[in-house]
Amino acid sequence: MAILDRTDQGAIARLTLNSPGNLNALSDAMLAALQSEFDRLAQDRHIRVITLMGAGKAFCAGHDLKEMTAGRQAEDGGRAYFADLFARCARMMTTILTLPQPVIAAPHGIATAAGCQLVASCDMAVAAHGSRFGVNGVNIGLFCSTPMVALSRNIPRKQAFEMLTTGQFIDTARAAELGLINRAVPPEDLESETMALAETVASKLGSAVRIGKRAFYDQLDMGLEAAYAHTGAVMVENMLDRDTAEGIAAFIDKRAPDWDQ
Amino acid sequence: MAILDRTDQGAIARLTLNSPGNLNALSDAMLAALQSEFDRLAQDRHIRVITLMGAGKAFCAGHDLKEMTAGRQAEDGGRAYFADLFARCARMMTTILTLPQPVIAAPHGIATAAGCQLVASCDMAVAAHGSRFGVNGVNIGLFCSTPMVALSRNIPRKQAFEMLTTGQFIDTARAAELGLINRAVPPEDLESETMALAETVASKLGSAVRIGKRAFYDQLDMGLEAAYAHTGAVMVENMLDRDTAEGIAAFIDKRAPDWDQ
Amino acid sequence: MAILDRTDQGAIARLTLNSPGNLNALSDAMLAALQSEFDRLAQDRHIRVITLMGAGKAFCAGHDLKEMTAGRQAEDGGRAYFADLFARCARMMTTILTLPQPVIAAPHGIATAAGCQLVASCDMAVAAHGSRFGVNGVNIGLFCSTPMVALSRNIPRKQAFEMLTTGQFIDTARAAELGLINRAVPPEDLESETMALAETVASKLGSAVRIGKRAFYDQLDMGLEAAYAHTGAVMVENMLDRDTAEGIAAFIDKRAPDWDQ
Repeated sequence: MAILDRTDQGAIARLTLNSPGNLNALSDAMLAALQSEFDRLAQDRHIRVITLMGAGKAFCAGHDLKEMTAGRQAEDGGRAYFADLFARCARMMTTILTLPQPVIAAPHGIATAAGCQLVASCDMAVAAHGSRFGVNGVNIGLFCSTPMVALSRNIPRKQAFEMLTTGQFIDTARAAELGLINRAVPPEDLESETMALAETVASKLGSAVRIGKRAFYDQLDMGLEAAYAHTGAVMVENMLDRDTAEGIAAFIDKRAPDWDQ
Repeated sequence: MAILDRTDQGAIARLTLNSPGNLNALSDAMLAALQSEFDRLAQDRHIRVITLMGAGKAFCAGHDLKEMTAGRQAEDGGRAYFADLFARCARMMTTILTLPQPVIAAPHGIATAAGCQLVASCDMAVAAHGSRFGVNGVNIGLFCSTPMVALSRNIPRKQAFEMLTTGQFIDTARAAELGLINRAVPPEDLESETMALAETVASKLGSAVRIGKRAFYDQLDMGLEAAYAHTGAVMVENMLDRDTAEGIAAFIDKRAPDWDQ
Repeated sequence: MAILDRTDQGAIARLTLNSPGNLNALSDAMLAALQSEFDRLAQDRHIRVITLMGAGKAFCAGHDLKEMTAGRQAEDGGRAYFADLFARCARMMTTILTLPQPVIAAPHGIATAAGCQLVASCDMAVAAHGSRFGVNGVNIGLFCSTPMVALSRNIPRKQAFEMLTTGQFIDTARAAELGLINRAVPPEDLESETMALAETVASKLGSAVRIGKRAFYDQLDMGLEAAYAHTGAVMVENMLDRDTAEGIAAFIDKRAPDWDQ
């Protein structure tokens, strides 16, 4: 079985990190598999939602420390390899935000360091009760500087700072409270609850979700005026979509829409 | 009775969206009425606080879909009308932030799409228990791209993303938890609780609240250094206000201030 | 005893605001003492964490209103003095963020106006149950414009706006919920709980915490791409640290790291 498993169910692509032996670490191979699968999905108009789970006892334990240590053997002590590694990892994380489809993380067990960053980088997250989240690189002397980019855009700053400098884990109740995950569910319901959320989103008009997701991240860093100018233009295009016209007409007529997409 | 009712009570202007037949939709007429009332209030030094309620069974159900559909009859399929509509709506929403007076939304029933945006755009919000909030345009194929500008500046991003892509409602407890409203009160107390909050703010020195509100939004998007430079200058002007000198002197002397304003 | 007490305990510098007679107000003398102690600590490689408490019955009641009132006697009515005062205060607050060591506030009693800003400006905060937080300058006609810079970067905007315009206090449960503090503890445990947190952070690799804290604030205001480029470079340097290599090797070998620092 591949290091990254993909099983489609209708319009939902279900990805599973499948390297339980190293707790689904983001090795060179795993990063490459995720990047190429995301790049493929970016072109796939049939798939409307992506889910991301982990095989085995954990969602993802972050970077592959053995591989990173081996990288030190290079003449430059690993400098070029590390720079490339963090660039590839950041590229994969930001690709999630630029994908046309919403991506739902469904962590269980632990999500640590870059694994916690992966949860933070997804558009939504449903976690199994009992999961633990941490940016605990500080415990081994490697501060989670890249994971904090995603984390600090999900949760308030004092709480992010504490996780980063203490290396302590938070549980699912705390993760939900802080905004890192949308909600927690019993482990036995993780798959069905994640699929239910995915199906809800997949049932919407695909073009609307696509332009909406893109506009969401585009406007977040803009000033208010620029954000309204940008999203106003997006709304105009959305209104002129034939399927949207049908959706609104159906709503006024109190009937189900007959959408092409 | 007008589409937008205004009743002043002391220094408080109480606005009521008064078009219950279409759930107080933000029609062309409603947008115009709000804009011109806000423009009038911006010049009114007597009014210190504004409250905003909805008549009938809902606060506001967003844009007027029938009116928008009629707009499609134009030669350009509605493009010019829609662009103008979203620009007028965004202008009204941002006017709230630039008004010298704090604006308190007091939603009940539902606040959906641009109606939810209206709650998010107000400086504060007190909601009736049982209210529901949603950016549910996605259900009819029209992603709430402009409402999300205000929403995503009120609540954390994963939670905003979920509301936008599922179209699902949140209740008042969740809205308070996420930061969309300040608190919820029993429906029968909505008016009195909103007025109590308004009166508290109206009892403060008017000039201080005015410059404070302006500085609040001005500094939000600045870097830390620029924000401190800006607000430091604001504090100096505030200190040089004769009424502020009296307020501080009265505090030191343990007596009530004798303010001109 | 000095206006600002410093007692070192291992690698932890324990600062205590020591002017209980005016509720540890940020007078000219107190601001100068904090600034010079912070400047000294910035150069001190032995100290890894700083804690900040208040002597007497309150943490800090903000600016010294009597001193500010005296400043009005100048020919310009205090303009130059006030401008300088707010600049000095902002400089002290931002110095906290640029210090190489994490700073933990440990408020009790009240933390008001610039005292609340001081809590918000620290990297983390542990508060005694029963503490109250307010930006209540508005009650005397002086809107807390500079405190809101720090406050609005800690808690959601509607909740910050309410505190600023009503002048009302929030308790520790609410402060924790909103993100202004990390947690509250019984008053009798404030010192030991603060020290326990400080010791946890102090036990980490000093160089990693140092570069991590700096990177944390540097990346917060950047766009996503710039933030990843910046923190990626930070991670590379971190990886090339000899002690980090040892930390990772020790983790792989399941033994305690032997760190030079």
